[in-house]
Amino acid sequence: MLRLACDYQEGCHPKILERLVATNMESTAGYGMDPYCESAREKIKAACGNPDAVVHLLVGGTQTNATVIRSILRPCEGVVSVNTGHINGHEAGAIELGGHKVLTIPHVDGKMVAADLRRYLENVYKDAAWQHGVIPGMVYVSQATETGSVYTLAELSAISEVCREYQLPLFLDGARLGYALMSEGSDMTLEDIARLTDVFYIGGTKVGALLGEAVVFRNAGLAKHFFTIMKQGGAVLAKGRLLGLQFDTLFTDNLYMEISRHAIDMAMKLKNGLKAKGYTFFTDSPSNQQFIVLENEKMAELAKHVAFTQWALVDENHTAIRLCTSWATSEETIDAVLSYL
Amino acid sequence: MLRLACDYQEGCHPKILERLVATNMESTAGYGMDPYCESAREKIKAACGNPDAVVHLLVGGTQTNATVIRSILRPCEGVVSVNTGHINGHEAGAIELGGHKVLTIPHVDGKMVAADLRRYLENVYKDAAWQHGVIPGMVYVSQATETGSVYTLAELSAISEVCREYQLPLFLDGARLGYALMSEGSDMTLEDIARLTDVFYIGGTKVGALLGEAVVFRNAGLAKHFFTIMKQGGAVLAKGRLLGLQFDTLFTDNLYMEISRHAIDMAMKLKNGLKAKGYTFFTDSPSNQQFIVLENEKMAELAKHVAFTQWALVDENHTAIRLCTSWATSEETIDAVLSYL
Amino acid sequence: MLRLACDYQEGCHPKILERLVATNMESTAGYGMDPYCESAREKIKAACGNPDAVVHLLVGGTQTNATVIRSILRPCEGVVSVNTGHINGHEAGAIELGGHKVLTIPHVDGKMVAADLRRYLENVYKDAAWQHGVIPGMVYVSQATETGSVYTLAELSAISEVCREYQLPLFLDGARLGYALMSEGSDMTLEDIARLTDVFYIGGTKVGALLGEAVVFRNAGLAKHFFTIMKQGGAVLAKGRLLGLQFDTLFTDNLYMEISRHAIDMAMKLKNGLKAKGYTFFTDSPSNQQFIVLENEKMAELAKHVAFTQWALVDENHTAIRLCTSWATSEETIDAVLSYL
Amino acid sequence: MLRLACDYQEGCHPKILERLVATNMESTAGYGMDPYCESAREKIKAACGNPDAVVHLLVGGTQTNATVIRSILRPCEGVVSVNTGHINGHEAGAIELGGHKVLTIPHVDGKMVAADLRRYLENVYKDAAWQHGVIPGMVYVSQATETGSVYTLAELSAISEVCREYQLPLFLDGARLGYALMSEGSDMTLEDIARLTDVFYIGGTKVGALLGEAVVFRNAGLAKHFFTIMKQGGAVLAKGRLLGLQFDTLFTDNLYMEISRHAIDMAMKLKNGLKAKGYTFFTDSPSNQQFIVLENEKMAELAKHVAFTQWALVDENHTAIRLCTSWATSEETIDAVLSYL
Repeated sequence: MLRLACDYQEGCHPKILERLVATNMESTAGYGMDPYCESAREKIKAACGNPDAVVHLLVGGTQTNATVIRSILRPCEGVVSVNTGHINGHEAGAIELGGHKVLTIPHVDGKMVAADLRRYLENVYKDAAWQHGVIPGMVYVSQATETGSVYTLAELSAISEVCREYQLPLFLDGARLGYALMSEGSDMTLEDIARLTDVFYIGGTKVGALLGEAVVFRNAGLAKHFFTIMKQGGAVLAKGRLLGLQFDTLFTDNLYMEISRHAIDMAMKLKNGLKAKGYTFFTDSPSNQQFIVLENEKMAELAKHVAFTQWALVDENHTAIRLCTSWATSEETIDAVLSYL
Repeated sequence: MLRLACDYQEGCHPKILERLVATNMESTAGYGMDPYCESAREKIKAACGNPDAVVHLLVGGTQTNATVIRSILRPCEGVVSVNTGHINGHEAGAIELGGHKVLTIPHVDGKMVAADLRRYLENVYKDAAWQHGVIPGMVYVSQATETGSVYTLAELSAISEVCREYQLPLFLDGARLGYALMSEGSDMTLEDIARLTDVFYIGGTKVGALLGEAVVFRNAGLAKHFFTIMKQGGAVLAKGRLLGLQFDTLFTDNLYMEISRHAIDMAMKLKNGLKAKGYTFFTDSPSNQQFIVLENEKMAELAKHVAFTQWALVDENHTAIRLCTSWATSEETIDAVLSYL
Repeated sequence: MLRLACDYQEGCHPKILERLVATNMESTAGYGMDPYCESAREKIKAACGNPDAVVHLLVGGTQTNATVIRSILRPCEGVVSVNTGHINGHEAGAIELGGHKVLTIPHVDGKMVAADLRRYLENVYKDAAWQHGVIPGMVYVSQATETGSVYTLAELSAISEVCREYQLPLFLDGARLGYALMSEGSDMTLEDIARLTDVFYIGGTKVGALLGEAVVFRNAGLAKHFFTIMKQGGAVLAKGRLLGLQFDTLFTDNLYMEISRHAIDMAMKLKNGLKAKGYTFFTDSPSNQQFIVLENEKMAELAKHVAFTQWALVDENHTAIRLCTSWATSEETIDAVLSYL
Repeated sequence: MLRLACDYQEGCHPKILERLVATNMESTAGYGMDPYCESAREKIKAACGNPDAVVHLLVGGTQTNATVIRSILRPCEGVVSVNTGHINGHEAGAIELGGHKVLTIPHVDGKMVAADLRRYLENVYKDAAWQHGVIPGMVYVSQATETGSVYTLAELSAISEVCREYQLPLFLDGARLGYALMSEGSDMTLEDIARLTDVFYIGGTKVGALLGEAVVFRNAGLAKHFFTIMKQGGAVLAKGRLLGLQFDTLFTDNLYMEISRHAIDMAMKLKNGLKAKGYTFFTDSPSNQQFIVLENEKMAELAKHVAFTQWALVDENHTAIRLCTSWATSEETIDAVLSYL
């Protein structure tokens, strides 16, 4: 079976594995107090160009979203997201478990539009009864989005501006951040992300690590008591160095960006191959997730050879499917998948 | 520096590491739907002697306690624990985050006493205003306890009996279960644990794994929607096979029990050495955690060579410290530590 | 100023006030354990035609919705509602505070349509990743709805049928239940409501009482520990007889229905007057809330004499407003309001 | 039956009832936006001597405690209380529902001792693992306490000083504040309370009102979004003027203090009568709650004539009971109760 169902189906990058093996019997302090975590945090701060940043290492994406959002919002506040946001549909109510509502606005190609955000916020406060509703307390975006689209620098800057005008912290979910930064036509750097947001995370699970997400707060004020809030949410890893070693490796010699670039190369090879064969795309994605529309019969046939994700019912006879590349995808796999399409 | 501060300061057992290396580039389904998780679950069910059991693999201890307790209690119900229980003091309010109170009763040597539990429950319902208080909804014990003590079969059976009389699910925190089962004088098996409790977990993080705790529910009814409750709590690992591979290895050829036995052997060597030198023990522990009382000056001296945990202030001049062995502790380390004492 | 802004702007029905005065210095047990609460509960059970019902008296609507929903849902479950449901937009996140998501489906004229509910539920379980999302755990409807519409017996029966097929408790918010039951063309009785739902409440605050909502559970199993869940949510009134006396009075000699009928008579007089004058209606409401569209200038003029609610922006120059009648509205008020329109 | 079981067994003070009757058919805005609420808030601010104070009116005590605490604490923070505090044992987990732990320290005569609080806080931060535990985020005391004792000015000042040193908001539960301020030997004024705390409430339910508690925040910063937080917790009363009218009346012509003084006079008459008869007191209370120890046989006999509260089992043959006076207690009742003792 060829697998392009998701970007978390292999283990970790071989360089990470090497270091795990090399350090396995070392004895270190737990809970992120070891030298590997310390080194990883420093490298990430440097890569973000922000010496005041505070970095914490968590295990997974839903956990990270829920913990960050819970740490920022006060009671009665909600988080604004597009309706297709991961926190709205794919996290089993993790935000609500923390006592907060996800306030949704429509998306355009999976992305939030700054003008829509502004209009939404204006309307909230125009309503005479706004004090009876959930109060917007922060804004959530993903880079790349659920449907593979990627914010441009101008787009994210405009959202950031609205957030600052309304004094709402901007949180960017970067579960696939490497793939976004290396995507076709991307005009943004990690430093831009760090500058335009108040808190974001750098996804490891989908980009070369066994597990792990690195949260970057703009400053210590925003991160107050964050370690204990993580602990309360079951998000502190006892053998924290497992996270430190991975991010330290990923942020050495530009590895994170290089392996992300590879995934994009594979995605573009796949996309071009599909285009050449005349497939209809469900979205026009420049990143590592590609979505095409298949007749249901064709889809059933493909499923015998390739693992993919059924994404959406298009009509009675057609379904949109997702094919994902990652740091681990080989050219041979792409060739083989294309041969079945 | 010699390290006996805790039982999670090294990586994982070499056999686990070998399998991680061997399988690293395999491509599998995520979220625990892979063959390694499936195999691990089957081996654990067999080891528990309960084919009806439902097994889920989580990442860490606080996460597991909070998720299990939240899945069982209804609103307004609390969990009964001894006041020294891990959930009461060391989890940053993880149980309260789920909306539930920890109802404490006194411990004897770190353990709950069945007669105390019965008296507590009788008194709850004797109070005319009991409907204005938190209603006991389940019972929590640890094996081994926070202070290294271990329940006998008779003691746990008596607690189990009270729970069944009051129709309260009994949950056993087995973060150090291997060390308890292999402790000096232990008269209990894994099957006994599975028979006497309604849900318990087998600790991996402290017993040979990089991370991971295996929850065992007595039956499917108790585990309803547990996967989604895990997801909501950020407790589902995307690359779930990392957990599967580890528990599969630990439950092959009795590895879990063998490495636990080693830790106990090292702990007894340490204990006997300390006894021979005339140290005062803070508790009389048969398991992998040993607690002694030191003069503060002596403690400061020891700290130059050995990493340990300061456990409790005994008086102005004395402190109780904890020394932990684990699957990874060598005889040489014990000898060297003893040489400093 | 003439006031038709809402249906909770006067005190209580004079018969209630009389009894409050007559019994003021009586000394009774607290927390709903007094004879007036007991009598009210019995009368409500009789009026519902269900001797197995369990009745609890709470203070307000948001409190009642949140407490009932929290008492029924398990972790990771959500409540299905139309997007215009009160719990979705007007309760400041009360449901989320309890840890639960409101799962919205589109409305038709403010109402849920049984076929839409069925399709929604079918699609939830068609999604291969449904275990990663919030699981529908109950269904919420309002009678009358936020926009004044009223379910017919056939409509509510169809919804009830879908709920029973999917084993989802059906909860009906009856903050304006009297006005719905007495609305123009209503074909439903209180007994029908009690038969078709699993739990519902009879609104007092908007229908003659100073405060108070009476929750009716179909049976004791659904209401397990409900008193303590109320207490936990701060929803138990110490001087509970204040609620008992009011519902006892409202359910004596059909008072609740009579005063509701009066409100409908006044609403229809208003509606007919507005129709005669050629106003455009925003919704075609048979109950005590009437919605018309006004030019903004006209609205500003009206606001000098009449208190109303601005409901929705229709376009740049037009706004929909709400005019509410209640048990307390006089014919003179209607005449006077019409004279300004 | 003579009733001294609690201080919420009658309706409201006749002057309040008069105003409810007089204003019943007036039509006002809801949710506390009416002139009576406005007037009440102003009178309370004046009585507190703090023009910067922000006053909100809620319905009941548990609700008020939970809402205030939830509005102040961040995730992972807990509230410090003596173990006998109302929030710890008598509120069915209301604080935990908000996600927070009650951190208990021992009481002396029902009261918190400043030196104990200081020692507790010092020890929290001495623990090397404090970041793994709940972080103290505020301090809760009651005036009068659960057992009738009353803080002196010096005692409360000392607690306030510790709180300010540790930058912890001090919250005072004044469900029985009138009875405390008017208690035998009290040396504190309402202004003192307002000056020494960050937020407190003035109890109405137990002191002359049908229902209602007035929360007083020291300044607007502490009260940010409090109305919406109330709404989210189901603590906003639609017909808010019911609360406004009551507090407006209670804070006119010193009524609140006068009726409180009456309750204390009755309590002292009772206490002296019981002393003269040689009864053993369970606590030495200067306020409206009196606790004596009775032989169980004697208690059973008394229960035929007098409603009281069984407070605590003293030994096999003796029970402590509570007798409460209130604004509504007559001399005749005291005489009659004493005649049965």
